[in-house]
Amino acid sequence: MFQEMLQNVREKSPLIHNITNYVTVNDCANILLACGGSPIMADDLAEVEEITSICGGLNINIGTLNHRTIPAMIAAGKRSNALGHPVVLDPVGAGASALRTDTARRLVEEVKFTVIRGNISEIKALSGASAATKGVDADLADRVTEENLGEAVAFAKSFAKAAGAVTAITGAIDVVTDGETAYCIRNGRPEMSRITGTGCQLSALTAAFVTANPDQPLRAAAAAVCAMGLCGEIAWTRMTPADGNASYRNYILDAVYNLTLQQLEEGANYEVR
Amino acid sequence: MFQEMLQNVREKSPLIHNITNYVTVNDCANILLACGGSPIMADDLAEVEEITSICGGLNINIGTLNHRTIPAMIAAGKRSNALGHPVVLDPVGAGASALRTDTARRLVEEVKFTVIRGNISEIKALSGASAATKGVDADLADRVTEENLGEAVAFAKSFAKAAGAVTAITGAIDVVTDGETAYCIRNGRPEMSRITGTGCQLSALTAAFVTANPDQPLRAAAAAVCAMGLCGEIAWTRMTPADGNASYRNYILDAVYNLTLQQLEEGANYEVR
Amino acid sequence: MFQEMLQNVREKSPLIHNITNYVTVNDCANILLACGGSPIMADDLAEVEEITSICGGLNINIGTLNHRTIPAMIAAGKRSNALGHPVVLDPVGAGASALRTDTARRLVEEVKFTVIRGNISEIKALSGASAATKGVDADLADRVTEENLGEAVAFAKSFAKAAGAVTAITGAIDVVTDGETAYCIRNGRPEMSRITGTGCQLSALTAAFVTANPDQPLRAAAAAVCAMGLCGEIAWTRMTPADGNASYRNYILDAVYNLTLQQLEEGANYEVR
Repeated sequence: MFQEMLQNVREKSPLIHNITNYVTVNDCANILLACGGSPIMADDLAEVEEITSICGGLNINIGTLNHRTIPAMIAAGKRSNALGHPVVLDPVGAGASALRTDTARRLVEEVKFTVIRGNISEIKALSGASAATKGVDADLADRVTEENLGEAVAFAKSFAKAAGAVTAITGAIDVVTDGETAYCIRNGRPEMSRITGTGCQLSALTAAFVTANPDQPLRAAAAAVCAMGLCGEIAWTRMTPADGNASYRNYILDAVYNLTLQQLEEGANYEVR
Repeated sequence: MFQEMLQNVREKSPLIHNITNYVTVNDCANILLACGGSPIMADDLAEVEEITSICGGLNINIGTLNHRTIPAMIAAGKRSNALGHPVVLDPVGAGASALRTDTARRLVEEVKFTVIRGNISEIKALSGASAATKGVDADLADRVTEENLGEAVAFAKSFAKAAGAVTAITGAIDVVTDGETAYCIRNGRPEMSRITGTGCQLSALTAAFVTANPDQPLRAAAAAVCAMGLCGEIAWTRMTPADGNASYRNYILDAVYNLTLQQLEEGANYEVR
Repeated sequence: MFQEMLQNVREKSPLIHNITNYVTVNDCANILLACGGSPIMADDLAEVEEITSICGGLNINIGTLNHRTIPAMIAAGKRSNALGHPVVLDPVGAGASALRTDTARRLVEEVKFTVIRGNISEIKALSGASAATKGVDADLADRVTEENLGEAVAFAKSFAKAAGAVTAITGAIDVVTDGETAYCIRNGRPEMSRITGTGCQLSALTAAFVTANPDQPLRAAAAAVCAMGLCGEIAWTRMTPADGNASYRNYILDAVYNLTLQQLEEGANYEVR
């Protein structure tokens, strides 16, 4: 079921406009190329509407947010909406500062997002629910576990409905929902959180998947989340005792590059709730 | 013939000032170190003239262009001109937005460039010729092939003459010309375009080569283009089935680091037209 | 003695706020994750005080300095001081431009730093002593060698006393001192200078070490310097003939990820003067 999603990425090679942070931007560009898409990064207000117009989809990421880029995010988002392009939001660090929380909320108010992807603390901050945060990581108290999964699914569905966007809450167990159907995904490895930007990369990957599959945003987002986690698992099998997070980062990108339709179809580990 | 160009880079270890984008900047710094040069990145108007003065050459790259850095590019370029330093322009994404096209043209008007390096779509956009673009990649319709090579060489020569700069149009076949002599280079691999920033890296490398060989900008630029492509070939021989664009990126930088004079001399694959 | 310093990093997992350059920021984030810490990058004046408040320590790095981030550095530094958080300064390129030299000096005047880490040229520029610089690298004439080590230690001690900060002057031999005691460290390899950002990474690592060991800044900083150099040595043992600076960069981060308490205790190569 997910293999068609990947096949469409490979066949259509969607061009994705990214307004993103300077920490993980190189990895975001490389994961887009790895999956078969194509990246362009542009964040100046003077060009973002034009750039987003020649692209198929838009990925907005608020890490290293600054006053120069906020109006560019709004303008690009509105233009993408007008053109009917898929738009993804990664609310990096929402809850960690008022600037990030307020900007993320303002983005959700002014732009219609196809997918919002973040960790549980970030999505809680966006929802206005009280949430703890450990910087850009989910707070331990918030984490989605087998024990609180039912609760997490209910929260994700309710958030997705209110936001009118497919919502992907990623962590040890990922929950991807459009408010009606929820995919609970158990791909991935805990060591992925020891690499900076695996979340940012997943958001870029998700943008490619929903852009290549515009009529099935829920399934496309779930496929992207499975693909990222699965590539984390495949990459882990290459690890030698001397390897650490730098090699693991490379191996994950390599795995995305080499991921076959069959691997994704067979390796995707999810249940629908 | 090209080995002397590389030898001079290794012996002189040119310090290159880079005003470049935040997507591929780390790779640009590492390729400069790999080839034997030394990088410094600085983009604030308050310091670029001073920084460029202590350097041997300047590399201007308009990816992730923004209003803060445009005046810095102009000021650094003019100062470099006044000092007689080589200056390289990489017009990333010219043609993709008015901001980029206009800024690239303004740069060419106000600064004398030693080398302009871009893909065919970018150089066409700079020339005012009608050109399609796929974001930061060359449009398929524009690509230089064996069939249209004669035409491409004629265009490159005419552009180089008009711009008064050695022009390097890179793609499946690279054309490097000063308007009189053209090197047609068949090094490289198509998979290099699946790595973000191989073009940006080549521009940084070219800056090191022309700075270390100030009296032979055409030959130095052609040597840099051959070296980059050849390193893409050498790196490819290391690829295992599990490797993808992340490992390939590393292997290319490693190959630049280890490139011998003899490898370059024997591996350079070009004809002169 | 140094193993407790590393153990505390692993156990406390300090969250470090980084205001740093866009060249090496990804590596800084990954080394913090590799050592067991956690990074957050934020540089907008509107959020830096809030961000630094939720962190344990602050790392300020003036590479790619610009007018937008200078007030953010000052504000974050003052807030960290008010909260009693450790603060590290990396005066990248001080001496290379008035903007960098003046900003570094202003930072030292307005913010109390726990550790200042730079190469000898940068620290000399900060001290007001006449210094040469090769961009962001130490000038050859300045370099600390066995011959001038006594002199370098005396200079470092006098600078540390005047600045009221542990000072780490890194190079072929590293000198880390609080003005009274100096650790002279002989870990590391010359090839580390062929990778962009090993200095920036060390500053981030140092911030994690002093944050996890707030009562022993001298010992913590010396441990971080030994750890970085030792990981350069360990990584070097993995190098194959085809490997260059890209693979070496990855291997060093991997070595930090895998560094054991025993490796650090046994591999730290220093004398106290």
